[in-house]
Formats: sequence, C-alpha cells, structure tokens
Amino acid sequence: MTILFLSPSDDPAEWLPELTRQIPGREIRVWPDAGDLSEIDYALAWRPPAGVLGRLPNLKVIFSLGAGVDGVLSDPDLPDKPLVRMVEPGLTEGMTEYVVLQVLHWHRQAEAYRAQQERREWRQLDQKLARERRVGVLGLGVLGADAARVLKELRFDVAGWSRSPKDLPGVTCFHGAAGLPEFLARTEILVCLLPLTPETAGILNWETLAALPRGACIINAARGGHVDESDLLAELDSGHIAGASLDVFAEEPLAPDHPFWSHPRVLVTPHVAAVTHARTAAGHIAEQIRRFEAGLPLEDLVDRTRGY
Amino acid sequence: MTILFLSPSDDPAEWLPELTRQIPGREIRVWPDAGDLSEIDYALAWRPPAGVLGRLPNLKVIFSLGAGVDGVLSDPDLPDKPLVRMVEPGLTEGMTEYVVLQVLHWHRQAEAYRAQQERREWRQLDQKLARERRVGVLGLGVLGADAARVLKELRFDVAGWSRSPKDLPGVTCFHGAAGLPEFLARTEILVCLLPLTPETAGILNWETLAALPRGACIINAARGGHVDESDLLAELDSGHIAGASLDVFAEEPLAPDHPFWSHPRVLVTPHVAAVTHARTAAGHIAEQIRRFEAGLPLEDLVDRTRGY
Repeated sequence: MTILFLSPSDDPAEWLPELTRQIPGREIRVWPDAGDLSEIDYALAWRPPAGVLGRLPNLKVIFSLGAGVDGVLSDPDLPDKPLVRMVEPGLTEGMTEYVVLQVLHWHRQAEAYRAQQERREWRQLDQKLARERRVGVLGLGVLGADAARVLKELRFDVAGWSRSPKDLPGVTCFHGAAGLPEFLARTEILVCLLPLTPETAGILNWETLAALPRGACIINAARGGHVDESDLLAELDSGHIAGASLDVFAEEPLAPDHPFWSHPRVLVTPHVAAVTHARTAAGHIAEQIRRFEAGLPLEDLVDRTRGY
Repeated sequence: MTILFLSPSDDPAEWLPELTRQIPGREIRVWPDAGDLSEIDYALAWRPPAGVLGRLPNLKVIFSLGAGVDGVLSDPDLPDKPLVRMVEPGLTEGMTEYVVLQVLHWHRQAEAYRAQQERREWRQLDQKLARERRVGVLGLGVLGADAARVLKELRFDVAGWSRSPKDLPGVTCFHGAAGLPEFLARTEILVCLLPLTPETAGILNWETLAALPRGACIINAARGGHVDESDLLAELDSGHIAGASLDVFAEEPLAPDHPFWSHPRVLVTPHVAAVTHARTAAGHIAEQIRRFEAGLPLEDLVDRTRGY
C-alpha cells in the first residue's frame, strides 16, 4: 500500500515523520518523485497540479489536506474516487481563534482606539455589549458551528446561515436563498466560513453587502472567491461597510499593488486563519485508511454534487 | 429615604432615570446639590471628593459605582459604614470581551501581521494553538473567573493566581506569595484583574516581570497602581516583555508626553475595558437596598481589612 503526498504548498519534512509514525508500514512518495504511478493507492492532496490524480490507475481514496476541497474539485480530470475532507481539531481551533479575534476587534472599535493612540487622544467611545451586537456566521459546518459556540460564550447575539437547515443551541438559524435577506438585514458583523462551490462563489457582492445594515463589518476566512473584491472596495469607500478582516483573496499571494494592503479599514492576513497541523491531521488520515481497509465506510466524504 | 449620587465622572443624566425607575419613591440628589446632609441615607459613590461621605451623619450604606473600591477606600475620612462593591453583569461582560480580545491579539501575532501589511509582505508566521499557549490571570474574583472561563472555551492553557486559595474548573490555581513565582514562570500572557490594595500595589515590577518567560505579554485592565511603569518600559525596551495592552495608568488621563503613547509594543486604551452600565447596575443597588430595608444581610460587602 503506497501513499502519494501531492501538495505544492505543504512541507513534506513536517508531514512525513507524522505519516510514517501514524500510518506505519506504508511507502510514502512525494510528488513529483512518484515512481510507478500504478502502485499508488492513496493520495494526500492540496491544490494538486491538474491531471495528476487522473493518472493514478489504482488510486483508491483521495484525502484533502485542507478543510476546503475547491482546490481539488477544480481539477477537470479528477477521477471518480472517494474524496475525504480534512476534519482535524487544530484546524477548527485555529479558525475559531481567528474569527473571535476579528469579531472582537471590530466590536470593540480597536481601529478607532489605535487611531486615538496615534494622536495621543484620551477619549472614551460609546460601546455596546456583546449581547447587543448581532453577529452572523455564513456557513454552519464544523468550523462555523465551533466559532458560533465560542461567540455565544462571549454573549454575542449570534445567527447563522447555511444551505440546508441546521439547529445550533442558542443560534438563530436561517437557510437557503429564501433565508438570506433576513439573515443579512440583522447582521452587524458578518463572518464567512462557507465552502467555495458554484452556488457560493461571489456570494459577498454589492447586492448582499448592501443588504447589511450601514456600518457593518465583514470577516472572510473562507475563500477569496466568496468576495467580489471591487464591490467590497466600493462599499468600504462609501462607508456602508465600516471594516473588513480578510485572510483569503481572489489571487494569493495578494499582489503588491492591490488596494486592500493600504486600505485604512481593511486588515490583511496572509491566509493564516487556520492551518492543517500535520500531527493531528495525520491521525485523521490514518483512522480513515484503517476504516477503509477494514471494509468500513469512510467518514467526512465530500459530496461532489454539493461541492463540499 | 434619600439617595446621594456622588461621582465626578459618571453622568447623572444616564443614571437618574434608571435609579428612579428601579428604586421608586426615593428622593435622589446629585452632589454638590445635596441639600440637608442629615437627610442622606444612601450614597452612590465613585472616586468621591475626600471628606464628603464623612459629613453625612445618618448615612446607612455606601454603594461603589465601580468594581474597584480603591477610589472610595482612599478617603481618609471614610465613615465606618457598610460598603457594597459593584457586581453587575454588564461590567463583567465588557471586561471579559476586552481581556479575550487582548489575549488573542498577542497570541495571534496581530502586531507582526499589521507591520507586514504596512510593508505589503505576504508571509506566514509560525503559530501556536491556544491549547499550547499558557495564559495567567492575576485575580480570580468575579471578573477573573469569567475571563478565565471564556479563555478556557477558546482552549487556552489557563492558570490563575489569587490571595486566598480558589478552585476553578479547568484552571490551574496558585495562591499567596508562595504561589506567585511558579505562576509567573509558566505564564506567557499575563492578565491583571486584581483589586488595588496595599498588598497588590506595584505588583508588576522589575522582579515579577523578570520572572515571566522571555517574550511574555502583559494585559492590565485593573488599576494603574498595579504596574511600576518605568520597570515595564525597561522590560519592553529590553525585549524581555514583547507587548503590553494597558487600559489603566498611574495618572489618568495619560499625559500627552507619556512614552506609552508612542511605544511600538504598547496598546493604549483610555480606561474603557469595562464600564458600569446604569441599567444593570441600578438593579444591583435596588436589590441591596431592598435587602437592607427588609433586615436581610447586604451582599458583595467590602472587607476593609482585606481592601476589596
């Protein structure tokens, strides 16, 4: 049983010791040194070069190394094999940390206080309590549900929106196209944690941003493809959107001349909201390989018609 | 029964409607228009002018309008009457929001990412998970306990220190002078929420700051008097302390020429971490007046020998 590590952006030096330790007795090859392609049983992939997965004639399962699988599904020659998404505690935890930090940053007027500090100005601003602040989480999968849970512990007034109906304790849940306008109209701080699919691409555009109340802030930690960047810039410049924390972009790395870098109401981070940790992630892959080889059904399978 | 509102910094226009609504049938006077001082039964005080409380011959109870009572206890002519501290949900909630924001700010290297954004630099930094970050809370009263609880929900490795032994679920608790060195040695992000007493004044000085591991950050949302400001500046400049979020200062407002304003590793906020909210606070005072007049013991009484 041979495993192919197929990621241009993950470091094999970090992954191989963990994979070897947690999935013993397998040969692990690192693309492009893949040897005889017919010997590959499992592929561990993150934004793999298009066409490679389709050239593995005996491939049994594809494991995504990231939470989002859009970078795997975009391969036009993707073979019809089971695709397992990455669900690992380190990734969820890091994402919740990032989301809570950014929500509190805008809620507590951190930019305004920083500007006052630069002017040596001692002035107390009116401040709502979290219980008076309406936060909306777009996407209620593993990541959205955990972020919503901690935001509730901080006593924010939390709502969520997802494609299909969900039920989360203490969270006002909306769903489907019909539920979106009401969700947006009540959301002062919007958090995007959606999977990127044809239905969610460009979901944050002039129409949905305009449906938020004036002065709303947005946080995107999902995919750059969720945001129409020129629409967002226009809404930031008009003041309708008061601030944005952006971790993901249409093109990454963000081009040096992109207006987000220097925008006074945009916080840019370089796709670091949550990273897959080899130590915990290798355990997830090992467990699924054990299940597969024991004839048990795989968990966390991607539904390709749904796109996540 | 007559109430005297005695605070140079709180706005009577915010408080009087709530007090009138929640404690009906009382006359409420606002200092200095106090009328016949012998008619005053209750005083609502926040940093009251020294000597005033001692001139109220029939005073029955003093209510502090803030969580800390150091500004009341510092009155050399303070009469020997029951002093009730402010315990109200809005104040606790606001403080937890501030503490969690600042802990996440330093934990997630927000200053480093902001500097990168200014340079248009796309670079991912090594990042621990919260579970790998040791946070220490000095002071485990109502405020410290609530902050520790939410930090635990974010999965930080949380310890606490208090004068007397405490037991908080999931929090490693240290106490007394004997417990301080071990608490400091394990604390990467230190949060000060202590009451200001003769024992805690200047507790953050060169000796305790040096006992923190190199690169530690500190957050002071208690009182300026807890910090020796020149010791802190020296430790920041040496790099032993990597960052500080300071909401309170030895002198407030912070003087325009104070080095904290322009220090690259200090975040200054103008004493806004938590404010008493008239709406919820008036309910606390009303409840204690009801208890007192019904002959029940007062709650949240300050122990003057302890100082909080």
